[in-house]
Amino acid sequence: MVKARAPATTANLGPGFDTLGMALNLYLQVEVELLGSGIEIVFSGVRDRSIMESPQENLIYKAMNFVFKQALYRPTGLYIEIDNDIPIGKGLGSSAAAIVAGMFTANRLIGDCFSPEELLRWAVTMEGHADNIVPCTTGGLTVAMVCQGEVFYQQVKPGKELQVVVAVPEFILSTERSRSVLPAQIALPAVISNLQQACFLLASLQNGDFTHINKAMQDMIYQPLRKQFIPGFQQVLQSALEAGALGAALSGAGPSIMAFTTSGQETVVGQAMEEAFDGAGVKVQVLYLKPDMQGVHYY
Amino acid sequence: MVKARAPATTANLGPGFDTLGMALNLYLQVEVELLGSGIEIVFSGVRDRSIMESPQENLIYKAMNFVFKQALYRPTGLYIEIDNDIPIGKGLGSSAAAIVAGMFTANRLIGDCFSPEELLRWAVTMEGHADNIVPCTTGGLTVAMVCQGEVFYQQVKPGKELQVVVAVPEFILSTERSRSVLPAQIALPAVISNLQQACFLLASLQNGDFTHINKAMQDMIYQPLRKQFIPGFQQVLQSALEAGALGAALSGAGPSIMAFTTSGQETVVGQAMEEAFDGAGVKVQVLYLKPDMQGVHYY
Repeated sequence: MVKARAPATTANLGPGFDTLGMALNLYLQVEVELLGSGIEIVFSGVRDRSIMESPQENLIYKAMNFVFKQALYRPTGLYIEIDNDIPIGKGLGSSAAAIVAGMFTANRLIGDCFSPEELLRWAVTMEGHADNIVPCTTGGLTVAMVCQGEVFYQQVKPGKELQVVVAVPEFILSTERSRSVLPAQIALPAVISNLQQACFLLASLQNGDFTHINKAMQDMIYQPLRKQFIPGFQQVLQSALEAGALGAALSGAGPSIMAFTTSGQETVVGQAMEEAFDGAGVKVQVLYLKPDMQGVHYY
Repeated sequence: MVKARAPATTANLGPGFDTLGMALNLYLQVEVELLGSGIEIVFSGVRDRSIMESPQENLIYKAMNFVFKQALYRPTGLYIEIDNDIPIGKGLGSSAAAIVAGMFTANRLIGDCFSPEELLRWAVTMEGHADNIVPCTTGGLTVAMVCQGEVFYQQVKPGKELQVVVAVPEFILSTERSRSVLPAQIALPAVISNLQQACFLLASLQNGDFTHINKAMQDMIYQPLRKQFIPGFQQVLQSALEAGALGAALSGAGPSIMAFTTSGQETVVGQAMEEAFDGAGVKVQVLYLKPDMQGVHYY
């Protein structure tokens, strides 16, 4: 029996489109075992099993097979037990966690044929972008860079007091739909603004200086277009800041909205976000999280 | 007598347009004194006094007057002695150093009426952009962010072994001319590439992990257009990398080209850059520098 735990992730953090990401202490746990025959997928958690029911559609199973194929290995049968706390289709990296957990468990089953770096690269290939896969694999706050098909990253430790509040709307927003409204061209002032904000946010989090990060999370590239899919978007950001959040932004492709707070502020901020969403007719679940510093790991 | 020393700076570092900057251990030194009458400007250094000869054109004098005016102070006369090692009009922040040194000496002459933060903001106003002013003021590797006219920054300490080689062409390239070719719109893939590179470079330098920064200094916004002004640009970058540079880029608006190296590699890299420029018919002076960690200071 091989057991792996992969964290949820929040990507972009406002200005760092396809670049910045952070692992969160909310997990997908997978236990796998080779069987003599057949594929058995069991859910020990009750939440969000929707898109994981059939083996053909199950990302964990697909990711395991990706690794098996690289090793020219064909398992006679597989038992997969899934305990998932990460909401699916909400912009919290559930697919990245499934792919990473699948690849790491498969690799362990075949005697660690491949390096973590190889698994990371394949996971990015399978996911199509790196901003969730990297923090899910490494933990912490990460910078992902894809250069001529190769994936490079740096990991950074955010200040210890940092809390992450996430308001998760009931409705699902597919990454495909969210990506469909991205602009082809961006005006130079908006580009400079995002560059300045992304670098300022990164350095602030690493320096543990949270004073001005609210000014560094106002993306000019995708939020202006994506917010149309999220009723109450602007009010939720505003309410979070008024309640004392350090900064707030769309989480990945959405529809969840994440806010940074320091210890002690999180409940007030979470309630303010919930009320603002409620005012726009959107029911939400509020998650109170912290950065995960470990990334995917066996347990 | 008030004496201030302001460092040269290299802005952008490739991908961090109008955002990243680094102070270098090459200085403009200014000694000032109040006189009963008249304005006397003296050059104790012999280099590059060209644009500083007349008081009306002298940026140090102008910057001093900017501060005096804010304090509603009118000096009866001024003595300014300048010792400048920073090449002028070469993309090494000579104007930022002049403005910063002028403002800091003027402020000390009037009893430190203003905070360093106020001087920083005025210096950015006078210069028109923040990417040289911030590192010149604070030292180190910096992120500058301008948000609704306010200037915010973070300072980061780059790894200790970092050396900076700068090849300074004989010809001058005005910032205005260099800025005239900036594109109005930038394609999304180029924007994402710059965001990823700028954040990756910043985190790499802060982490002291120089392994892949050569892949993080390939700007897609301004270098493709600005290189037309610099004969041999592509060959110089290439030669620097082949000689062992960690990465290389246009320094600010150019025409200088800067390269990062570790200790021991700098001479080989400098010679390679000089030869490549020579092959394109450009004579250069090569400077072997390190990050300055102090910024402007009285001495």
